[in-house]
Amino acid sequence: MADRPSTPHLDRLRGPADLRRLSDGELSLIADELRAETISAVSETGGHLGAGLGVVEMTVALHAVFDTPRDRLVWDVSHQTYPHKILTGRRDRIRTLRQKDGLSGFTKRSESVFDPFGAAHSSTSISAALGYAVARDLGGTADPEIGDCIAVIGDGAMSAGMAFEAMNNAGHLGKRLIVILNDNEMSIAPPVGAMSSYLSRLYAGAPFQELKAAAKGAVSMLPPPFREGAKRAKGLLKHMAVGGTLFEELGFSYLGPIDGHDMDQLLSVFRTVKARADGPILIHAITRKGKGYAPSEAAADRGHGVSKFDVVTGEQAKAKSNAPSYTSVFAKSLMQEADEDRTITAVTAAMPDGTGLNLFAERFPGRSFDVGIAEQHAVTFAAGQAAGGLRPFCAIYSTFLQRGYDQVVHDVAIQRLPVRFAIDRAGLVGADGPTHAGAFDVAFLANLPGFTVMAAADEAELRHMVATAAAHDEGPIAFRFPRGEGTGVEMPERGVPLEIGKGRIVQEGSRVAILSFGARLSEARKAAEALSARGINPTIADARFAKPLDRELILSLAAEHEALITLEEGAIGGFGSHVAQLLAEEGVFDTGLKFRSMVLPDTFIDQASPADMYADAAMQASDIERKVLTTLGVDMLSKRA
Amino acid sequence: MADRPSTPHLDRLRGPADLRRLSDGELSLIADELRAETISAVSETGGHLGAGLGVVEMTVALHAVFDTPRDRLVWDVSHQTYPHKILTGRRDRIRTLRQKDGLSGFTKRSESVFDPFGAAHSSTSISAALGYAVARDLGGTADPEIGDCIAVIGDGAMSAGMAFEAMNNAGHLGKRLIVILNDNEMSIAPPVGAMSSYLSRLYAGAPFQELKAAAKGAVSMLPPPFREGAKRAKGLLKHMAVGGTLFEELGFSYLGPIDGHDMDQLLSVFRTVKARADGPILIHAITRKGKGYAPSEAAADRGHGVSKFDVVTGEQAKAKSNAPSYTSVFAKSLMQEADEDRTITAVTAAMPDGTGLNLFAERFPGRSFDVGIAEQHAVTFAAGQAAGGLRPFCAIYSTFLQRGYDQVVHDVAIQRLPVRFAIDRAGLVGADGPTHAGAFDVAFLANLPGFTVMAAADEAELRHMVATAAAHDEGPIAFRFPRGEGTGVEMPERGVPLEIGKGRIVQEGSRVAILSFGARLSEARKAAEALSARGINPTIADARFAKPLDRELILSLAAEHEALITLEEGAIGGFGSHVAQLLAEEGVFDTGLKFRSMVLPDTFIDQASPADMYADAAMQASDIERKVLTTLGVDMLSKRA
Repeated sequence: MADRPSTPHLDRLRGPADLRRLSDGELSLIADELRAETISAVSETGGHLGAGLGVVEMTVALHAVFDTPRDRLVWDVSHQTYPHKILTGRRDRIRTLRQKDGLSGFTKRSESVFDPFGAAHSSTSISAALGYAVARDLGGTADPEIGDCIAVIGDGAMSAGMAFEAMNNAGHLGKRLIVILNDNEMSIAPPVGAMSSYLSRLYAGAPFQELKAAAKGAVSMLPPPFREGAKRAKGLLKHMAVGGTLFEELGFSYLGPIDGHDMDQLLSVFRTVKARADGPILIHAITRKGKGYAPSEAAADRGHGVSKFDVVTGEQAKAKSNAPSYTSVFAKSLMQEADEDRTITAVTAAMPDGTGLNLFAERFPGRSFDVGIAEQHAVTFAAGQAAGGLRPFCAIYSTFLQRGYDQVVHDVAIQRLPVRFAIDRAGLVGADGPTHAGAFDVAFLANLPGFTVMAAADEAELRHMVATAAAHDEGPIAFRFPRGEGTGVEMPERGVPLEIGKGRIVQEGSRVAILSFGARLSEARKAAEALSARGINPTIADARFAKPLDRELILSLAAEHEALITLEEGAIGGFGSHVAQLLAEEGVFDTGLKFRSMVLPDTFIDQASPADMYADAAMQASDIERKVLTTLGVDMLSKRA
Repeated sequence: MADRPSTPHLDRLRGPADLRRLSDGELSLIADELRAETISAVSETGGHLGAGLGVVEMTVALHAVFDTPRDRLVWDVSHQTYPHKILTGRRDRIRTLRQKDGLSGFTKRSESVFDPFGAAHSSTSISAALGYAVARDLGGTADPEIGDCIAVIGDGAMSAGMAFEAMNNAGHLGKRLIVILNDNEMSIAPPVGAMSSYLSRLYAGAPFQELKAAAKGAVSMLPPPFREGAKRAKGLLKHMAVGGTLFEELGFSYLGPIDGHDMDQLLSVFRTVKARADGPILIHAITRKGKGYAPSEAAADRGHGVSKFDVVTGEQAKAKSNAPSYTSVFAKSLMQEADEDRTITAVTAAMPDGTGLNLFAERFPGRSFDVGIAEQHAVTFAAGQAAGGLRPFCAIYSTFLQRGYDQVVHDVAIQRLPVRFAIDRAGLVGADGPTHAGAFDVAFLANLPGFTVMAAADEAELRHMVATAAAHDEGPIAFRFPRGEGTGVEMPERGVPLEIGKGRIVQEGSRVAILSFGARLSEARKAAEALSARGINPTIADARFAKPLDRELILSLAAEHEALITLEEGAIGGFGSHVAQLLAEEGVFDTGLKFRSMVLPDTFIDQASPADMYADAAMQASDIERKVLTTLGVDMLSKRA
């Protein structure tokens, strides 16, 4: 274990209530120790470091001024809440972050009364806080009684349509609601200035006369870099399409910008707002992601997501890699296709690194589009490109594609437009837990008429599927693949388009057929190995397509085996359900078939390693083996069937 | 047939190209005749009248100035495109609007090259037009080659998050793109003025010097009511949270407001834009919904959606009603519950009339929330209310709930918050066609852990389901019901909560069991009647719940019958798939069961009457009868089984 920082003041805190008895000076000391403790904890666990470091002072000030948990503090995305967790009774478990049976990396209602609304996807906080405000005013029965409702939202999250919808509604309703815009300067745009005249116009208005002194003070107290930051703020906000005027047009009172690392400013502004706010108010705080930890501040991503690291050097542990990641195989394969086809474009929604499209953007800057956190737009934008004769690849994680579902149905599927969906993070994803699981995409895509839906069994298959999608102009097509490393198979130099709707036999056997869709194939192989020791040699097939189904393959597997077991990294309603429907319609069940469909269980699975999560889901090799045995009616204890 | 209007100029037009050879004065005559023809056509077909009348001049001017179909004209929602259809080669079929085998009530790519992007749901046009603009600039292979890309979007549609996302991206990309904001004054807000200083600031900027004259002229030409309208425009826009400044902050050049019914203004502004625009530009046109037809102008909804009507009097044909509509039963039942439970609230996304919540809002104004076209926010806002101890009913059509899917998963299901989803327009909906079909909700909800999913077999069941949802605090719950009238069953005075996860036997029989989920139950009964003449007496059961399933009921039906057929108004992946999974897991298929699942077919079904659409889907009583016979292996021609 690394040396722990000395945290004498933090050590004496039992909870946020204790903060309210401290002097402002002591609160600053607490903040310093909280930063050190956060760095120390994340050095042991890995996780989201930069975001939390950017809100250390804000976290202390919020809990010191507001009466949490009575006042509801809703953190947007909530990967910035490690300091919040340390302050709210979870310090003793903070070094279990993102681990099995440990603390979640996000807020979670079941984890603490100080987490009134869980998150992980972005831009939900204002809607949720507004819901609380309505409940407060209508006498909702929540315990404890509801006081102030506060949303803390980043500049990126504020640019999503959902946040705009929520602001629009909040301004209309006029209820007391506090939104803190945590503007962490991660966007880059030319400064446009004019903030000071803007501020004076704001402060002139009632009922914020009392704020004038505090706010003015706040601005004059800005140290030089922050004065620059304040100037840049308007530019940043222009870039993301919001600004003070917009907030005011939306019916919010606007206060800012303030220095989000200056405890005096934060405390005075929060106290004034707490005492005087009588409608929706937006506090604009300028912060710095990674603040106060040199290696984070120096990193290009400001320490957004880190592995375990050495606190002194900032050096991160590197995982040994035996195979390329699916993400990089996707990106490289797409670049290969794009090299030869100038109509291929790529669309991502604020995930260029996560989807590998940063590489594509470097090589094809004019054909790469990062639209920001805007999945709805991303999908229809790609549909428009397809209508215009391009071949767009829309790369969105499975879980985030849920945000653009109506657009997938209404703009892509109904019009049969050949948008290519590259669905990364299919299945269970590990440390990010249930909010990031890619569980539902096959179910919600495969029932759309005209859609083609594939899943890659390994990284070589993924390369072929990219080529298949590039070549498929007849309608929408999607291919899904898991997070993490491939299986280490030999890679083909180039992808070759697969025949649409055709699976493959991986291994011929008898009695039982395992029909896998996606990357559980390797577990099926392991299960088959174990089964062979018992004298059972399953046939193993890779379906490749959930739609259209390989009817011939499936019906022949059903005809030639006593049992047929489907396997997929997804929830019910997807591949297995489509196979069941085919078998039913063809009358295969009429005369009996031992059919089973292994899908994700009917529960949200907490974070752990992907392998542990799949063990929880009963979808590992041993589970497949067990399923085969019970289906065949073989005594599990017997050595041979 | 009613007297047709005299349309000598319109009669000579073969297509939009002909418009470009006419004088401005002749274009005005065309517009007048186009309005008369639109009124005449809709008087015969019914449909969306007011929206089309509001854009008659704009439609003529757009086609006269822009080079359609080379220039891509994308209409948002597109229920305002009847005049557009008349001008673009579809006049001979305009009196088949919204009818089986007739013209769609919306734009449709397969219908005409002049419809470059279909619509029906709102707020997609800017994304699509931007996609076209990208395709143009990258050399997309669309035919014809792509010229200008134009989106026409209403003020309501502009308030959705998706439109905001698209504007944000369009402003960033800076491509030549024309957005026409069709502000039809249907919103009501206090005027705030200050538009003139705003305009002068706008016109001062390059490169729109050339526009100055045209635009200035446009304003001075505004007749008094429109000058008032122009003043009000800022207020309207403030209400919907956008305004000139916002457009400019988003990177758009802003031009307006102009009088959207003044052909001279429209032509001069469009011509100047066509000649000079070099980036994204927004033209703000003030129009009047229902313009030029007194009965529409006088109606509260400006003739939004009408039945067939008498052109002279404006009197609409009234359909005879034998039973209350599901929508009104929902609304009245909810009011009954809310009378006794002050924590019940209602949330709708711009559909107060369609969902019946207008009635609720009258009685409980403080507990009713219309958030505008903002389904993402609506869902999470309701989730926040539930977290705060209220009992929110979130009433959204099945097809529009797709817009809030991620929020249903991430904010409601994962947190097990007791949001009640009232899902109107489940199944096929008739004249609105495939874009409005409620086909996928059961599939995308029933696989969410912790969700309860119900469907009402008739209006009495609906009343009980409202009571069930009101009483259910253990997690999210949804109930779906179709469009239109109920079946005329006797109504209970009050709803009584159903036992969760319990279905009911409707009729005991033998050999085959029909297990219905939702309103196809009446068709199942009819099928059973026809079958009894053949000596087959099916058992009929109403599942009530797709989740949790009534395991006991289903397994006993399977055990006691030779065949089991499920029936639902939804796509594969829903109720039938869950039943199949249960039967598979329980080993029921191992020894044989004639299981069939009747679901919507794998195709988008074009508009017709709901009965005709269900006939297309092979889900009418005769289809159920046939399915029973083929499943049992009974010769269809024999009189008795």
